Amino acid sequence: MADTNRKYLLAKRPDGTPDEDTFELVEEDVPEPGPGEVLVRTLYLSVDPYMRGRMDAGESYADPWEVGDPLRAGVVGEVVESNGSRFEAGDVVTGNLHWADYATARGSELQEVNPDLGPISTALGVLGMPGRTAYFGTREVAEPKAGDTFVVTGAAGAVGSVAGQIAKRSGARVVGFAGSDEKVAFLEDDLGFDAGINYKETDDYRAALDEAAPDGVDSYFDNVGGPITDAVFSKLNVDARVAVCGQISLYNAEEMPTGPRKLGKLIETRARVEGFLVGDFAPRFEEATRRLGEWVAEGEIQYRETVTDGLESAPDAFLGLFEGENIGKQLVKVGEREA
Amino acid sequence: MADTNRKYLLAKRPDGTPDEDTFELVEEDVPEPGPGEVLVRTLYLSVDPYMRGRMDAGESYADPWEVGDPLRAGVVGEVVESNGSRFEAGDVVTGNLHWADYATARGSELQEVNPDLGPISTALGVLGMPGRTAYFGTREVAEPKAGDTFVVTGAAGAVGSVAGQIAKRSGARVVGFAGSDEKVAFLEDDLGFDAGINYKETDDYRAALDEAAPDGVDSYFDNVGGPITDAVFSKLNVDARVAVCGQISLYNAEEMPTGPRKLGKLIETRARVEGFLVGDFAPRFEEATRRLGEWVAEGEIQYRETVTDGLESAPDAFLGLFEGENIGKQLVKVGEREA
Repeated sequence: MADTNRKYLLAKRPDGTPDEDTFELVEEDVPEPGPGEVLVRTLYLSVDPYMRGRMDAGESYADPWEVGDPLRAGVVGEVVESNGSRFEAGDVVTGNLHWADYATARGSELQEVNPDLGPISTALGVLGMPGRTAYFGTREVAEPKAGDTFVVTGAAGAVGSVAGQIAKRSGARVVGFAGSDEKVAFLEDDLGFDAGINYKETDDYRAALDEAAPDGVDSYFDNVGGPITDAVFSKLNVDARVAVCGQISLYNAEEMPTGPRKLGKLIETRARVEGFLVGDFAPRFEEATRRLGEWVAEGEIQYRETVTDGLESAPDAFLGLFEGENIGKQLVKVGEREA
Repeated sequence: MADTNRKYLLAKRPDGTPDEDTFELVEEDVPEPGPGEVLVRTLYLSVDPYMRGRMDAGESYADPWEVGDPLRAGVVGEVVESNGSRFEAGDVVTGNLHWADYATARGSELQEVNPDLGPISTALGVLGMPGRTAYFGTREVAEPKAGDTFVVTGAAGAVGSVAGQIAKRSGARVVGFAGSDEKVAFLEDDLGFDAGINYKETDDYRAALDEAAPDGVDSYFDNVGGPITDAVFSKLNVDARVAVCGQISLYNAEEMPTGPRKLGKLIETRARVEGFLVGDFAPRFEEATRRLGEWVAEGEIQYRETVTDGLESAPDAFLGLFEGENIGKQLVKVGEREA
């Protein structure tokens, strides 16, 4: 075991898009687990759009990260040492730890990862928080039904790709917005979407939807916000449901983003727009993980991962989310499993 | 009975705010009721903000009025002549008729007004469509609960004034936006609101809400839209409900109104925003009218009317809605009851 731990701190709150001044890589001794704690060596680290919000000081649903504190992330790691916890060395676990080679945590902060269920990295993707976000946001908020048209933005991402496939299982026509022809091919050929729209190839999202969603939109899962969402709103049908999951197109805006006022459309359509956080469904996480696992095992849900190599690639992997560089779940591979 | 009927037609679709070119007053012979029809003489005519939408050609929840056709309105009138309908001369009825001295209608298009329940004009206000809109929008969409803070815009209007009083009955703290000190006094002194905000006396609606709604906003009934609604959204609490009833501040806009993008706030708060139309609750109209009638009879719900005199005052009465000239229900008195 190395004696040095590399760890990223929040060096400075970003104005707009984070850059190299946002992140500081420090070295320290590998921490020692206190009583009831374990030492975890990071194997995979998850970068997610929501992290951008934690870098700001403003009020949000979660406390902001403090400047000088370690950046946090979903991690899959291997237990190196256990100081009286329920885990033992060699166990694979997941939890909300650091952008680091190592971290300590109480046993109660970690969940076991069963390597027999699939690649351990899926605990950060299709069988982890993004998969559960898609599961609850689609089934409980957007509620696509047979015959509906369901639209999802960020469709080739970790959440959107699963949301679209769950909607497809409900019998809906599924349309996804994504940012490259490769991603559109992934949606249409691998995931079974009815239509993909490459939003980088057109400015007229409404016209693209007129073609891809000729009967209008009954159910919308929004990860992106901004002008694409405006176009989807203009196509909402009576009694449509909108699940607001993310607004990644706006997270790096330096000024308050503006756009057309759309509440009048909600009167006309009696549509419901609802934000949600996956954490509110915590009592049902086990259900979600079990069902997603079954669907993946049966080949009913496909997933993809984009993996960068080495802890030092984490900042770029994170920033790449805002450029749409990932297909499926964006992960950082930090270490190899020893067991 | 006069032999001449005066009637307003939609002369021209307005660009922005309607003006004298929008309305054309024509004279014709008093129409004769066909088989199964009655001839109704108008006593009161209702002008309502939603009518602005019908003047446009664009898609909406209801078919637009055609240029050259009569303007339509909720009317309370007296049956002058019945040609085989269930009504007889002297009956007081209400229905969706014309901006006119007289109109014919099938009996099935009319409801009887019971003059013993209160002034017949209330069939167009607190015991009519506006009252029912407040009833269902508050109870079924905004859902204020005991201890909540409930905010309503257009609070001194026909719908808002009833919505706030229904929310008060639910045990919520009730805050209303209105456009004059007289209206604020009406809210606080006559209707029992906890606080009124005169939006014409401040630009900083957020600061006004910090004072009037120090615990944030749990339930919002929006009749107005625009910057006041932005401020209310900035104060939404976790699991807040927003009922979108109207957006009167935007109806006369000549260009698409823009404003800050607020969907991110819905994620943070898991708030639900839902548009509604009173017509969707038609199977429950009787329930609403009965309960509103009881509350009015018991003095639990107060109402006010602003009445202009003469059919020729209808265009100005309608335009006055957008200037906030009315307190409570805006009516046009067209004729006197003869019975």
